Amino acid sequence: MTDNARNILTASVEKISENYDNSEILMLSDEGALPDRNAVIDIIKDLRDVMFPGYFTGIVTEGAPAQYYVGSLLCDIYDSLYIQVKRGLSYKKKKSLSDAAVERMTEDICNGFFEKLPELQNILLKDVEAGFNGDPAAKSKEEVICSYPGFFAIFVYRIAHELYNYGVPFIPRIMTEYAHGKTGIDINSGATIGEYFFIDHGTGVVVGETTVIGNNVKLYQGVTLGALSTRSGQKLSGKKRHPTVEDNVTIYAGATILGGETVIGEGSVVGGNTFITSSVGKNVKVSAKAPVLNFKEGKK
Amino acid sequence: MTDNARNILTASVEKISENYDNSEILMLSDEGALPDRNAVIDIIKDLRDVMFPGYFTGIVTEGAPAQYYVGSLLCDIYDSLYIQVKRGLSYKKKKSLSDAAVERMTEDICNGFFEKLPELQNILLKDVEAGFNGDPAAKSKEEVICSYPGFFAIFVYRIAHELYNYGVPFIPRIMTEYAHGKTGIDINSGATIGEYFFIDHGTGVVVGETTVIGNNVKLYQGVTLGALSTRSGQKLSGKKRHPTVEDNVTIYAGATILGGETVIGEGSVVGGNTFITSSVGKNVKVSAKAPVLNFKEGKK
Amino acid sequence: MTDNARNILTASVEKISENYDNSEILMLSDEGALPDRNAVIDIIKDLRDVMFPGYFTGIVTEGAPAQYYVGSLLCDIYDSLYIQVKRGLSYKKKKSLSDAAVERMTEDICNGFFEKLPELQNILLKDVEAGFNGDPAAKSKEEVICSYPGFFAIFVYRIAHELYNYGVPFIPRIMTEYAHGKTGIDINSGATIGEYFFIDHGTGVVVGETTVIGNNVKLYQGVTLGALSTRSGQKLSGKKRHPTVEDNVTIYAGATILGGETVIGEGSVVGGNTFITSSVGKNVKVSAKAPVLNFKEGKK
Repeated sequence: MTDNARNILTASVEKISENYDNSEILMLSDEGALPDRNAVIDIIKDLRDVMFPGYFTGIVTEGAPAQYYVGSLLCDIYDSLYIQVKRGLSYKKKKSLSDAAVERMTEDICNGFFEKLPELQNILLKDVEAGFNGDPAAKSKEEVICSYPGFFAIFVYRIAHELYNYGVPFIPRIMTEYAHGKTGIDINSGATIGEYFFIDHGTGVVVGETTVIGNNVKLYQGVTLGALSTRSGQKLSGKKRHPTVEDNVTIYAGATILGGETVIGEGSVVGGNTFITSSVGKNVKVSAKAPVLNFKEGKK
Repeated sequence: MTDNARNILTASVEKISENYDNSEILMLSDEGALPDRNAVIDIIKDLRDVMFPGYFTGIVTEGAPAQYYVGSLLCDIYDSLYIQVKRGLSYKKKKSLSDAAVERMTEDICNGFFEKLPELQNILLKDVEAGFNGDPAAKSKEEVICSYPGFFAIFVYRIAHELYNYGVPFIPRIMTEYAHGKTGIDINSGATIGEYFFIDHGTGVVVGETTVIGNNVKLYQGVTLGALSTRSGQKLSGKKRHPTVEDNVTIYAGATILGGETVIGEGSVVGGNTFITSSVGKNVKVSAKAPVLNFKEGKK
Repeated sequence: MTDNARNILTASVEKISENYDNSEILMLSDEGALPDRNAVIDIIKDLRDVMFPGYFTGIVTEGAPAQYYVGSLLCDIYDSLYIQVKRGLSYKKKKSLSDAAVERMTEDICNGFFEKLPELQNILLKDVEAGFNGDPAAKSKEEVICSYPGFFAIFVYRIAHELYNYGVPFIPRIMTEYAHGKTGIDINSGATIGEYFFIDHGTGVVVGETTVIGNNVKLYQGVTLGALSTRSGQKLSGKKRHPTVEDNVTIYAGATILGGETVIGEGSVVGGNTFITSSVGKNVKVSAKAPVLNFKEGKK
């Protein structure tokens, strides 16, 4: 490194340190640590191994009682989740909780979460069935589990949603954004989603925080269940801004459905590339009017 | 861990073990193992190093005969692919094949696949050329190889398609979903795609299982070549459900082209955001009619 | 491995070696090495730790002077960037530079880049603020930093853009394609983007090389700022092909805005799913005309 480079680096280090001091969100050391993103992602991966053993790590129980495998792994996950939830609740102690209160909340959350796991596993098996039955290109249910991005996104959502319901900060978002990064499917952990849910292909799907989805619903790639406008920003926080989709609805690729009062009625089919900002009745088929196209011969 | 937590964990482990017993797809140990997802992904990465040495791992042959490098790596890939293909064919032995028959099929598939590799490499070089020639932002062909997601998705598709043609279960789908996760481009390994293929940007592209694409075709982000309806699910399995795109066609961003009998004729240009469910002739330019927009002054 | 397999492998190795010899882009050893993709990605990750310590690796300074942490890490990054920039400039020495000239250019680039870092950090803090203020679902600014894909894509863009401005080959593209792969957001490093920039959800966003974006602009998922046509390929290289978006503009999901002469005037709002190929005035709201839909009762 030349003298010139050394001088430049020294000056930059000084200015960056000043930036740390001047920003309330840059110096983390005195304020407690955020949940560790990598640890949170490992929790997701380990839970996937518990729920679908042999599908991702190649670990199989080989005749030994399954309890040994799942028991030891679950204990590790419990400890890791405990640490991360506590970090999330402690961070800057915005609600000025005592240490003891944080410990108590953390334990309640973890206990509640682990009590729910077997039920979540059963719900996920229904999602697998929906995926297999809904896609002519699926060769087996096993294929849905081990390779369908839609199924992975739903799996992560169902885990994260439990933690969202307990008001855990940071962790649900880190989880669903991990799935978003892997799949292009962005399901906010706050959404409420029924059983037998399937998303095919999935890239570009957005399901907003206050969306409500019934049972047996199927979405294709590029579907947005979004807010009509978010120009008021944080003032809208907590209000129902996203649609309700009732049971047995199919929504084809690229449909955009917006607004907290918009309801897609039971059994309806929403065609591709539609743009919907008001409610649709039950058992109706909605499609964009036959698109008007220009045809020119001799394209050059 | 408190006593309460321990009790909850014990109960959850028991219920999860029961779930394993009650589902035909959750207990893998007695049924043989699925192909190992990570091993399949490593095969993809190693094949990329064979075909484009120096681009991804920084390994270069430094004057030593290239045969040493490629020879040793290819032997490793052969062994790994052999194991994974055998796993896929053996899994639950749905077609009740004998062990010997599985071994024979596995060897035939691997031999056929490795015989085809040099030709695949040459086809991929043509795809690189199409990428460079088709994108004004491309600074060099090398840049296309080392960083273009469209090229990576096509590379993985061409590998996976060979294995799909042999009817290998699981592996082609694991491969293309890996590329889908990395690029947002979802090409089903069953699609048939000609030479000099290029996908620019690519996020959101879907190319369905029975799509047929000619030579010198160019797609942009968000293009769907899909099925008109898949509400009949598994009953449609095996039928031609996706379009045919002839030679020298360009399809701009967000176009949705659906249906197994839809043909886009040679040399035609399909405009962005069009929605097409019937055939288009040769050398035609199709665009959405000039969109009707509302303009309001004073946006509030 | 059987004799037959061995023969097939040997023949394939030979043909692949021939392919290396016959292509000008396949044999890298004699031509100097390309920048190492993994090293470039590590530079991105390390710079993220410098700018946002504690958010990604869990490393916190624990009361020790922040200078130690940032100083030691920055020195490592400097060395690594130096090597990669030099590789990029040296590759095939297309501009027939002397070794000394390459060294000089490399040092100038690295020095300029590191001098700029503290300012980039401050600009990124403004992007965090835009993200928090613009999204009712954001629970805190910290959440934006540690989990929002839009923020990650902007972070990588701002780093890569500095290197693009110096004409560094390969590295800016590797960086932005890394972010594209992680987020589905494809911002070309050549684009010019003002302060307080926010992209919500983001999957499918494309911002082309010659795009110009003002301050306080907000984009949603699936927005394309693209070229009207790229059928002339490399002939268009260097020309302004992408739109200009002035200050305080909001562009909703799925809008496609094309063309180098297209300007979206200050303060305007562009509605979802619009398709715009000519300029829009200031403080105007543009929306797609109320979509014409078919409703059919009794969907079967």
